Amino acid sequence: MAYNLLKGKRGIIFGALNADSIAWKIAERAYEEGATFTLTNTSVALRMGETAQLAEKCNAQLIAADATNVEDLENLVKQSMEILGGKIDFILHSIGMSPNVRKGRHYSDLDYNYLEKTLDISAISFHKVLQVARKLDAINEWGSVVALSYVAAQRTFYGYNDMADAKALLESIARSFGYIYGRERNVRINTVSQSPTRTTAGSGVKGIDKLLDFGERMSPLGNATGDECADYCITLFSDLTRKVTMQNLFHDGGFSSMGMSLRALEQYEKGLDCECECGPANPNHKYD
Amino acid sequence: MAYNLLKGKRGIIFGALNADSIAWKIAERAYEEGATFTLTNTSVALRMGETAQLAEKCNAQLIAADATNVEDLENLVKQSMEILGGKIDFILHSIGMSPNVRKGRHYSDLDYNYLEKTLDISAISFHKVLQVARKLDAINEWGSVVALSYVAAQRTFYGYNDMADAKALLESIARSFGYIYGRERNVRINTVSQSPTRTTAGSGVKGIDKLLDFGERMSPLGNATGDECADYCITLFSDLTRKVTMQNLFHDGGFSSMGMSLRALEQYEKGLDCECECGPANPNHKYD
Amino acid sequence: MAYNLLKGKRGIIFGALNADSIAWKIAERAYEEGATFTLTNTSVALRMGETAQLAEKCNAQLIAADATNVEDLENLVKQSMEILGGKIDFILHSIGMSPNVRKGRHYSDLDYNYLEKTLDISAISFHKVLQVARKLDAINEWGSVVALSYVAAQRTFYGYNDMADAKALLESIARSFGYIYGRERNVRINTVSQSPTRTTAGSGVKGIDKLLDFGERMSPLGNATGDECADYCITLFSDLTRKVTMQNLFHDGGFSSMGMSLRALEQYEKGLDCECECGPANPNHKYD
Amino acid sequence: MAYNLLKGKRGIIFGALNADSIAWKIAERAYEEGATFTLTNTSVALRMGETAQLAEKCNAQLIAADATNVEDLENLVKQSMEILGGKIDFILHSIGMSPNVRKGRHYSDLDYNYLEKTLDISAISFHKVLQVARKLDAINEWGSVVALSYVAAQRTFYGYNDMADAKALLESIARSFGYIYGRERNVRINTVSQSPTRTTAGSGVKGIDKLLDFGERMSPLGNATGDECADYCITLFSDLTRKVTMQNLFHDGGFSSMGMSLRALEQYEKGLDCECECGPANPNHKYD
Repeated sequence: MAYNLLKGKRGIIFGALNADSIAWKIAERAYEEGATFTLTNTSVALRMGETAQLAEKCNAQLIAADATNVEDLENLVKQSMEILGGKIDFILHSIGMSPNVRKGRHYSDLDYNYLEKTLDISAISFHKVLQVARKLDAINEWGSVVALSYVAAQRTFYGYNDMADAKALLESIARSFGYIYGRERNVRINTVSQSPTRTTAGSGVKGIDKLLDFGERMSPLGNATGDECADYCITLFSDLTRKVTMQNLFHDGGFSSMGMSLRALEQYEKGLDCECECGPANPNHKYD
Repeated sequence: MAYNLLKGKRGIIFGALNADSIAWKIAERAYEEGATFTLTNTSVALRMGETAQLAEKCNAQLIAADATNVEDLENLVKQSMEILGGKIDFILHSIGMSPNVRKGRHYSDLDYNYLEKTLDISAISFHKVLQVARKLDAINEWGSVVALSYVAAQRTFYGYNDMADAKALLESIARSFGYIYGRERNVRINTVSQSPTRTTAGSGVKGIDKLLDFGERMSPLGNATGDECADYCITLFSDLTRKVTMQNLFHDGGFSSMGMSLRALEQYEKGLDCECECGPANPNHKYD
Repeated sequence: MAYNLLKGKRGIIFGALNADSIAWKIAERAYEEGATFTLTNTSVALRMGETAQLAEKCNAQLIAADATNVEDLENLVKQSMEILGGKIDFILHSIGMSPNVRKGRHYSDLDYNYLEKTLDISAISFHKVLQVARKLDAINEWGSVVALSYVAAQRTFYGYNDMADAKALLESIARSFGYIYGRERNVRINTVSQSPTRTTAGSGVKGIDKLLDFGERMSPLGNATGDECADYCITLFSDLTRKVTMQNLFHDGGFSSMGMSLRALEQYEKGLDCECECGPANPNHKYD
Repeated sequence: MAYNLLKGKRGIIFGALNADSIAWKIAERAYEEGATFTLTNTSVALRMGETAQLAEKCNAQLIAADATNVEDLENLVKQSMEILGGKIDFILHSIGMSPNVRKGRHYSDLDYNYLEKTLDISAISFHKVLQVARKLDAINEWGSVVALSYVAAQRTFYGYNDMADAKALLESIARSFGYIYGRERNVRINTVSQSPTRTTAGSGVKGIDKLLDFGERMSPLGNATGDECADYCITLFSDLTRKVTMQNLFHDGGFSSMGMSLRALEQYEKGLDCECECGPANPNHKYD
């Protein structure tokens, strides 16, 4: 169902790789709600992904840009304004990647060049997008910028590795720049802390299946899906949330406010009972 | 501008006293967005306030209820379902009152009977509304309940007195009941932590003018108004925020994420300079 | 090992029922560290518990007081100053009880008279202690007041019921009064959010065994014990923590900052595997 | 006054530049409490600062190390164990520097090479210290590691610039590594969020005088001094706080839990009155 919430609004959407991507779903919903926008990703991702189909479907132009490269971003923002015919009203940042995770480096054995990349791609790129946009005065008054985050920024999750630190940095940048861009241009900047989601990126997280199961049983409303995240982001891009800024907004079915649910505890209890009745499961599980 | 976000939805709105009330503005916006609802307040408030005008404007029925009285609430919920023709989709709780504040009792000289009333009216009433609604199975799947709160639940504000404790309790009830009602019926429960607002209730807060000025200069987007709060609550009642629950959502122009802004610091600095240049202002200010 | 950290300090300790009580352990440690203090509990608890043994061991006097009764508290504070020969340097508040939990009332079927009692005993009593102490000017400059809390104040735990709301209220009172008492007398007020602990009170919590196991595996350092809590509270009563106030301090082996540990996830995973291999465990578990 | 709290404990202290440094005061207090330790700083800082005097006073050896250089850190940790005669019990990380701040780059005009340095020096160095220590198995069971932070990690302060993001990253690293090092070796890792302090580093912060004044009036106990911070850190290095880990601990006289104090509001109010009575102060204040 569409409401015309973004009628006449122009945007830039980072990070739509394939139909599983949250950014993909946000693009679809933004299109339904009347927005026009450009889509962007690295040139490698654009070649390998299916973003062109999305672009066609949403009547959007694709612009290749490495979000860690200031010149690419300048080009992206300028072109977007040209193509869309005016200043930008909303930006979605859905970018995250950790070479340490990819290469299986443990958090206590990080490669510091990789860490620098993790932070640059997953967090500092957000600052670059904002700094470029501001210097070009590219965002309209009351524009809205959202970056996707995860609760690992606040609490440690086994296996999430240096992405946790990247998300903490990302959320801090949202606050720091939210102050500057808010007082000057009334632009709001927030992060959405989304449930774990089975995307191409999410699949790289260690134990994602168990995390999803745990989240599902822990959250009173179950995990939030990518589609639901898209709906939520639409509200944040709309004119109805103009005074929400510098916030990290949990969109997670209640997970972040749970300590222990009955459903998760029952599952956990089965593990305890099981140990007695069936003997330890997975005796060879390596310590990691 | 209206989007039909609440088309077909039925609600109950507590706390609309006069045109300054946030609840009043939420009612107006809910009406514009296609909702039908009942309005409720204490019978005293209904007699003294101008709620009848609002009811007429929104084509809504008025039902008197003391929100601390379980029987009144049962009657309210039952009648509302009858009048509206089905189960409820959203509830707004905008209720708060402290006899200690009214009678000028200092926080270190509380009257404990008054404190009990403060908590009962401002926080426990929220539990009563939810418990009554759940027992009557009165809220539809994916219904949404919002209570209005204030950042004093997290940080101490001079003069806010026992209302701070009431708001902390209110937010805890939202989490505790959000778990129960979420897992059982997918009902979401949140609090909106709103900027200080010049309402009839707000005017009772000590030093409200200075707080408003401080908030205005501290928040990058300025204080959020009642009208903007209404817009925001509409998104929380809509189907676009279904997986947001057990959260305290700051709607405050960024205030809650600020430590010190330039604008507030300049004003503060003037006070420092002023002292030197003009001598201390307000030398007779009493310690309170 | 003792350090003379509390040499010459005078205190009042609420809530030592038997040798399992955290307050009991704190009393023992405070005694070792050179403090003198009075012990207090309700007259019923004093009759039933073994507090007299503790009093003897610590050379402390027992004073019966109902912490919800202002007159009792006045008497307690006055007597304590007389007995100890001067103003008080530290107070421990370790009081919590929920008739709703005791009587098995579900959180969605609370008895509101019971809720009032839960809040009065577990939270408002803390305000009463502070208000009485301040009116009698009974606490020395740089005195320290600690109340014991639990992470359920921030996140919902299945079965913790209205005690969660009481703890949220308790922590708010610590902030609100911490402001007043701090600016006037440099008295600091904090709450310690302790791991679940197998005390007489803790045993009343539903599923305490599983919570303890979950906490043990989730917290990198394991659950904090009562003895360790006593050590920690000694530091908070000492002169080394004079500028820590209005804080909720987690003493929990890291639990509060964990999202998911490997150890807990493995146990959880066993439950998942177990279901497949052995069939669902506890098929008759009732929904609660 | 000394308590022998660190008797027999061995440590490494980073960041003591001169007698204003918090690390300097911590070293003095650690010495008084019976600890032996090495002192470290960059070779430039060691040449320019007065650390040699501190070393002499505390009977400590100086070891030059660039905390961003893994080899330097390996050498430091190995040498420290040799000199001190065994594994390390505590580490203090008091390191922060932003070339963007130094060069006057505005947060919306960051130099990204500088930002990389800010993060490397002020936050990633903490990970490097921990990773090196763990690989060398250099910390005893129940060892304690503390890094100094600032509330700008949670809330935006005008002028604090990219140091806010560095502190957020630092605190995240404390959590992430606290999990790993806790479960493996029972080593605890925390950050202390200290009041603004007039140190050589602190003096670089824009408007530090006004921030100090604001903090002084806002915090019920006033700003925490460097000496008081030293006392607090002693408790965190002692055996009395063994189960506190992965926490950010505010040591700030209550500032972090304040929304508005009477004293700060009065000062602020003077600014408002002053404007009327004396005309605007500082009319030429540039927007920054």
